[in-house]
Amino acid sequence: MGIHQYIKSLSSLETLVRAPGIFKYQKHSVAEHSFKVAQIAQFLGDVEENSGQTINWQSLYEKALNHDYNERFIGDIKTPVKYATPKLRAMLADVEDSLSESFVNTEIPSEFRTAYRRRLSEGKDSTLEGKILSVADKIDLLYESFGEIQKGNPELTYEEIYKESLTTIVKFKSMASVQYFLNEVLPDLLREKFSDQEKLEEITQHIVG
Amino acid sequence: MGIHQYIKSLSSLETLVRAPGIFKYQKHSVAEHSFKVAQIAQFLGDVEENSGQTINWQSLYEKALNHDYNERFIGDIKTPVKYATPKLRAMLADVEDSLSESFVNTEIPSEFRTAYRRRLSEGKDSTLEGKILSVADKIDLLYESFGEIQKGNPELTYEEIYKESLTTIVKFKSMASVQYFLNEVLPDLLREKFSDQEKLEEITQHIVG
Amino acid sequence: MGIHQYIKSLSSLETLVRAPGIFKYQKHSVAEHSFKVAQIAQFLGDVEENSGQTINWQSLYEKALNHDYNERFIGDIKTPVKYATPKLRAMLADVEDSLSESFVNTEIPSEFRTAYRRRLSEGKDSTLEGKILSVADKIDLLYESFGEIQKGNPELTYEEIYKESLTTIVKFKSMASVQYFLNEVLPDLLREKFSDQEKLEEITQHIVG
Amino acid sequence: MGIHQYIKSLSSLETLVRAPGIFKYQKHSVAEHSFKVAQIAQFLGDVEENSGQTINWQSLYEKALNHDYNERFIGDIKTPVKYATPKLRAMLADVEDSLSESFVNTEIPSEFRTAYRRRLSEGKDSTLEGKILSVADKIDLLYESFGEIQKGNPELTYEEIYKESLTTIVKFKSMASVQYFLNEVLPDLLREKFSDQEKLEEITQHIVG
Amino acid sequence: MGIHQYIKSLSSLETLVRAPGIFKYQKHSVAEHSFKVAQIAQFLGDVEENSGQTINWQSLYEKALNHDYNERFIGDIKTPVKYATPKLRAMLADVEDSLSESFVNTEIPSEFRTAYRRRLSEGKDSTLEGKILSVADKIDLLYESFGEIQKGNPELTYEEIYKESLTTIVKFKSMASVQYFLNEVLPDLLREKFSDQEKLEEITQHIVG
Amino acid sequence: MGIHQYIKSLSSLETLVRAPGIFKYQKHSVAEHSFKVAQIAQFLGDVEENSGQTINWQSLYEKALNHDYNERFIGDIKTPVKYATPKLRAMLADVEDSLSESFVNTEIPSEFRTAYRRRLSEGKDSTLEGKILSVADKIDLLYESFGEIQKGNPELTYEEIYKESLTTIVKFKSMASVQYFLNEVLPDLLREKFSDQEKLEEITQHIVG
Repeated sequence: MGIHQYIKSLSSLETLVRAPGIFKYQKHSVAEHSFKVAQIAQFLGDVEENSGQTINWQSLYEKALNHDYNERFIGDIKTPVKYATPKLRAMLADVEDSLSESFVNTEIPSEFRTAYRRRLSEGKDSTLEGKILSVADKIDLLYESFGEIQKGNPELTYEEIYKESLTTIVKFKSMASVQYFLNEVLPDLLREKFSDQEKLEEITQHIVG
Repeated sequence: MGIHQYIKSLSSLETLVRAPGIFKYQKHSVAEHSFKVAQIAQFLGDVEENSGQTINWQSLYEKALNHDYNERFIGDIKTPVKYATPKLRAMLADVEDSLSESFVNTEIPSEFRTAYRRRLSEGKDSTLEGKILSVADKIDLLYESFGEIQKGNPELTYEEIYKESLTTIVKFKSMASVQYFLNEVLPDLLREKFSDQEKLEEITQHIVG
Repeated sequence: MGIHQYIKSLSSLETLVRAPGIFKYQKHSVAEHSFKVAQIAQFLGDVEENSGQTINWQSLYEKALNHDYNERFIGDIKTPVKYATPKLRAMLADVEDSLSESFVNTEIPSEFRTAYRRRLSEGKDSTLEGKILSVADKIDLLYESFGEIQKGNPELTYEEIYKESLTTIVKFKSMASVQYFLNEVLPDLLREKFSDQEKLEEITQHIVG
Repeated sequence: MGIHQYIKSLSSLETLVRAPGIFKYQKHSVAEHSFKVAQIAQFLGDVEENSGQTINWQSLYEKALNHDYNERFIGDIKTPVKYATPKLRAMLADVEDSLSESFVNTEIPSEFRTAYRRRLSEGKDSTLEGKILSVADKIDLLYESFGEIQKGNPELTYEEIYKESLTTIVKFKSMASVQYFLNEVLPDLLREKFSDQEKLEEITQHIVG
Repeated sequence: MGIHQYIKSLSSLETLVRAPGIFKYQKHSVAEHSFKVAQIAQFLGDVEENSGQTINWQSLYEKALNHDYNERFIGDIKTPVKYATPKLRAMLADVEDSLSESFVNTEIPSEFRTAYRRRLSEGKDSTLEGKILSVADKIDLLYESFGEIQKGNPELTYEEIYKESLTTIVKFKSMASVQYFLNEVLPDLLREKFSDQEKLEEITQHIVG
Repeated sequence: MGIHQYIKSLSSLETLVRAPGIFKYQKHSVAEHSFKVAQIAQFLGDVEENSGQTINWQSLYEKALNHDYNERFIGDIKTPVKYATPKLRAMLADVEDSLSESFVNTEIPSEFRTAYRRRLSEGKDSTLEGKILSVADKIDLLYESFGEIQKGNPELTYEEIYKESLTTIVKFKSMASVQYFLNEVLPDLLREKFSDQEKLEEITQHIVG
């Protein structure tokens, strides 16, 4: 038991590769994804603040940084589970929660348990910070899938991930930060050099509307 | 739908790394593990046959070759789940079965479904071939964990895997092939050059008795 | 001497990369290739059996699983030897046989030598199982080369490998399993998304006729 | 110009490997390091808060997350520069600052420049948060070097890095979080299994006093 | 101190990856680059000699083989420094020289110092051999960038590197070896199979004139 | 046909890994080995020259740089062929020569063929430069095997390679450069930190005498 175990465990997130079982040109570890999501959330927070919202920055950074720590326990298994029903997904979430709760009780000293229980619980709630996390997580996933499409990866999964990410982002389009992303960032991304440009623009048009 | 999808899917098993989230010096893909388990099962079958047993070789090879195909759906998640209860493990097995059944119905043409349903179902049953598979699977796991211990991997997980594999193998010690393994193979493995030799010999002594 | 050495040696086949000296996006070890060939042979066996043939499954699995074990001795050197004459290829085969024979005599205990001598000898004979192995070996090679072409690999070698594999497969086109492959599997493969589609279809048309 | 370029640039930090030019068993990207430093800083912040200090969490997370973004411009060159004088190090810092300033003016839209100028400037100032960053950065470096020593890396550089990190941490020992680290975390780390245990304990004793 | 340290240090050049921080399909170490530059310089020397020039072969090989040894000290940092001014580049060169001088004095026994001081100093002088080195260094860089463009790498940096390399090569076009390269080698390179062929031909036309 | 093919082929030597089929912590490509052998030969040449010998530097560099180009054709197959008889080794050398000759005639323009035929033929002749190459090649092999032993690699092959390399080096001990290596360099190498120190010193003592 102890914080040494926690610090050591961060290395597991460096070892876990995202989208296991699917060929990729560029690997991303869960640790790298967490870093990028925190960076993206930080920017989305800037936009919200500039548009007049009040951001609880502690909560925003905390949510973003810790949102995938639990993958340490069962790995990144959501992506390939394409045949899964909602019921199966719920079962997997339960497994994850049980493992996480067990970890906090076993490894984290009692004076820090409240903080880690909060950090390792689901951060994508209905607060502004929870919504920014939902969006930032999908923006990084969109960039990761785009990176593969742009490099010529023939796995159709990446197109599906692109669609699924963008569809989720668009659901939050009442947010100033999402509007900024759709109007200022996404067009630049689509102007990048790659061969499926037209197809991806069409898909994007269809989703963004 | 079609066999092309099945052949392509074999590549997923090349991309899936065993024991994800744990540092290792040498990576083993699920495809490589399946190859080695089939090779080891082939040898254990030789020993059983030499000792007078009748081997259903078709069944033995089939079980060994296909026993981890399902990992394609949710990955190799059993190893790191050290906080899991038996109930949680059972839930994960259910998820795997559902995904596998769904895959056969969606991708495999009807005239081959019976064969693939058999191949993708649990092969570790009470037949001689099922028991050989159980042993062969653990022998490869024991070699993989030994390989890391021998290379100086400080992760204690590998010692736990060594113990757990050997404990399972010993449960089958009434089998001629397991006796051969314990008497002729394991001592050679422990005579290999490595620094934890004494400790591992002690552990082994304790388990083998 | 002993089976421990044999089991350990399986790891060499995990370390040997196919097509050494040629740039590739996705690496395949000899162990992974052996796994895939055994899987493909299993399927081709299904088709033959459904078409009324009798399959010696023990022989089929054994041939497929062990057909490249000998690469452990001199590596996968056939692919890059593009300037080689038939005489040179024959010389290399002799070297391989001598090393393999020497290995069986040195490492395999006497009671298993007959089995391993059979397993490590050339499996591509004129039996139905030998012919299925010839085809399965080339189908996996065709998929490996197609995988690189599809990912945009500019090395012309992969196009040559695609042609050479398909040409060999077509030589066996009187077999029901080859007909199934040409009629049901290959068209799906060519419908995959990639940029050289037209050219590869033309090549394929030209070879399949 | 634009935020798209900034988000894309995060990928550079995934591609940059720490301690280039020195053999290592486990690679760490600058993105992964940044994630771990933010996690460690978060924990040190917990300890400080529990001990009665007031933490500006926004500042702490921001400093930790962004502290190595500038490595994108000239890479991680400090470690190998073991022959460098203070003057040379100062020159390199100037180069980094110029590149960073140039980047903000070229790529970041004007309404976000103040925020990014702050984020990309030196975070290790004399505030409590700046001191926590200094410590967290060295704790991760200490863990990275320890990881190599524990795995048996014969490069003496890692021992030097261990010493240098610990020496810096000890300079901050008036902080509650550093005391927690020295009393509760470091002893657990030294109780890990590895062969140089005695030597490292001696070194540690010598530095911690 | 001693030559053992020098021989060991060659391994650093195997560990240093060229163009750090930029995604690439194929990695090249500084050691590999040095090998290729020496090979290319050897060929350019052949052409010069055939055209009537006298080559100091010792000087040519020595310059080519050792020209990047100094990267060991600060890594390959020039490529990504795209925002750098000439002044910044000069500062970095000074740092490199100081580290190199310090290394020779510390590690190389006195009887070999003159030789190593010459080898580790700037080889791209105005001698014929110095000019061949300048060209050979850029030809390998051009091949490395072309390799990425041909494999479909969407990073625009590679196009910039292609342009910059070719521009430098063209500056030496009064040399017989450069004329041979432009007339006999470059057209073959552009006849390779890749999708950006037209664009690259245009760029090349524009630069070669 | 043409020099473009030759320059491109240098990349094959970057892709070929030395000692294929044997687990290693650090990979070395044939290109990297060639670089290091040329560097070591350069140093041995210095010693010989200082001791009064006349070095043909052009020949020395040329031999060292090109001595393994032929591995491109059949790969690095000598190391694992431990069961090979001298006759088999001779056969493999014949294959290599034929492929090399065929390559020069097919790819190298006629005006350069004499030079490349010399470069691609066996360089380890009885000249001083040929002998330096023999020694330099083994010194790098000794360093590569030592690197694995020092990192804790349990493969006994590396101890065999160490012995075999040193035995060959000692055969040339009448040379001033070999004496320098044995007296000034090897002792420093053995003073490095590693666990098998005593054993390796004993082996070394036994061979050096």
